[in-house]
Amino acid sequence: MTAALAPTPAGPRSLGPGPAVLAFDVGGTDVKSALVDRSGTLRGLRRTSSPAPGADSPQRLLDLLVRLADDLREDHPGIEPDAAGLVVPGIVDAPAGIAVFSSNLGWRDAPLRDLATARLGLPVAFDHDVATGSWAEHRIGGARPFDDAVVLIIGTGVAGTLILDGRLHAGGGYAGEIGHSPLGDWPCPCGARGCLEAVASAGAIARRYRDESGRTADGAREVLALAASGDAVASRVWDEALDALAMSLAQLTAVLAPQAVVIGGGLSRAGAPLFDELRRRLADRLSFHRLPELVPAELGGDAGILGSALRARALREAS
Amino acid sequence: MTAALAPTPAGPRSLGPGPAVLAFDVGGTDVKSALVDRSGTLRGLRRTSSPAPGADSPQRLLDLLVRLADDLREDHPGIEPDAAGLVVPGIVDAPAGIAVFSSNLGWRDAPLRDLATARLGLPVAFDHDVATGSWAEHRIGGARPFDDAVVLIIGTGVAGTLILDGRLHAGGGYAGEIGHSPLGDWPCPCGARGCLEAVASAGAIARRYRDESGRTADGAREVLALAASGDAVASRVWDEALDALAMSLAQLTAVLAPQAVVIGGGLSRAGAPLFDELRRRLADRLSFHRLPELVPAELGGDAGILGSALRARALREAS
Repeated sequence: MTAALAPTPAGPRSLGPGPAVLAFDVGGTDVKSALVDRSGTLRGLRRTSSPAPGADSPQRLLDLLVRLADDLREDHPGIEPDAAGLVVPGIVDAPAGIAVFSSNLGWRDAPLRDLATARLGLPVAFDHDVATGSWAEHRIGGARPFDDAVVLIIGTGVAGTLILDGRLHAGGGYAGEIGHSPLGDWPCPCGARGCLEAVASAGAIARRYRDESGRTADGAREVLALAASGDAVASRVWDEALDALAMSLAQLTAVLAPQAVVIGGGLSRAGAPLFDELRRRLADRLSFHRLPELVPAELGGDAGILGSALRARALREAS
Repeated sequence: MTAALAPTPAGPRSLGPGPAVLAFDVGGTDVKSALVDRSGTLRGLRRTSSPAPGADSPQRLLDLLVRLADDLREDHPGIEPDAAGLVVPGIVDAPAGIAVFSSNLGWRDAPLRDLATARLGLPVAFDHDVATGSWAEHRIGGARPFDDAVVLIIGTGVAGTLILDGRLHAGGGYAGEIGHSPLGDWPCPCGARGCLEAVASAGAIARRYRDESGRTADGAREVLALAASGDAVASRVWDEALDALAMSLAQLTAVLAPQAVVIGGGLSRAGAPLFDELRRRLADRLSFHRLPELVPAELGGDAGILGSALRARALREAS
């Protein structure tokens, strides 16, 4: 039932032939940047610390993006990008190009798309980091074979993205909150009750083990190892996480009938024992429903920057 | 918190100008038939008993449809239909035109669209009755103002339909099973556990009252009246139904973020007290989520035949 977490999948794959583009994936702690050449290979992939939160953090982010773009152009003089992709965390109004809110980065209503367009001198595709990464799973990753798929990233939190009929269903930015969909009555820091994330995220698994055992585990990874070695508290915490995940998958199956649920994030590295157990519990909960395939995400931590590049290319291909 | 059920809404509305069509809505007990004129008015709306189940029930249904069509043409000689709509219950493969299974009507894999096309001498639009009725709510009923809406019909069972980005999300015929989406661990006759329908359908409310009180109520209607008059068992059964509905709505809100949930069927006739209480409990369960409007369905029992007519018209307008 349990297994140690396997290492992260191998590095980014090729995007295939297309326009050369710049790609940025802004996170709470670092900014990933790369140049994608016309063969679709990521060149000069690099992590740089994100600007500290503050009133001028959008300005400092733009300064950083310009510097990273200059570095990439200097290092790869033969590759002239036609567009740039920029994805950011928090609440994002993608059609308007606005980063509505990020507590980690400290901005509110920052018109990042227009600012980046002006500073970089290129058309900029702008969107939410997780939604874009999940979109990349649909285009070139684990969700590739499916028109209807749910991508579930289970790490510190639980983030969901709905691909329906080959398109992202954003619901005005509010859809896919599978981590904050109620399953019971336990408290959640978000203010709602019974949220999946409060029981089944990698973060929750480590926290619940600490709260119930009085001992600190080194993340969900160690809780799983403890459960495998017979620790009763770790086994119960892991079992309750699996039950909550299976119930959430059962609801998605009944309501959306996706062909597949693609699972990524730290917890997915538990591998076959996680997937096999979820398949068993999901089938056990349902009856006449069409069960989705449960498949691992393929792009790992590079999903965001790959998606950022795909979006930038789509911008050029559409124009 | 409780209220007597109000009477059914007034008769069918006009579909507006368009081609004249025949419309059929086949149910387990009767077949509704009508002719829609070019102004969009239903003419000669009539109920006839459905053929008894049996090996030749598709054949007998087709004989009946031909007779009803002949009667309609004879009674309205100035109206020449250009197409026909045919909607049926059970499991339906709409793209293939096949009625896969209906226990009430006794058919399996009946190619009803092609058979009806040949017998009626008209192009036939063919689909599932509830999905089509809910689609009609989107086109001309309570879901009209919304691109993203869930239509929930709560009667003997609970049937859901998802309208996303203005289109029906069918999930190969498996999506929208909100009535059989798990909320807990109670048994459901479908074989799954914790289904909404087993607690919150009008049928379940009457059955649970009977099982828990030892007294028979005349449907959910009487259970609600008993709850209003202080019957403790009736109050608990109604309260549990409301809690399950609110939890199901909370999940839909978190995952799909619909702009509205349109509620129809017998239970929706409880009116404002039902809707107000659901709004209150839904808001209480959630936090940062975007709450949908909860609005009553408008087409009542005529949704199916109106949808059938709309589908037939769409067939003509597309050709």
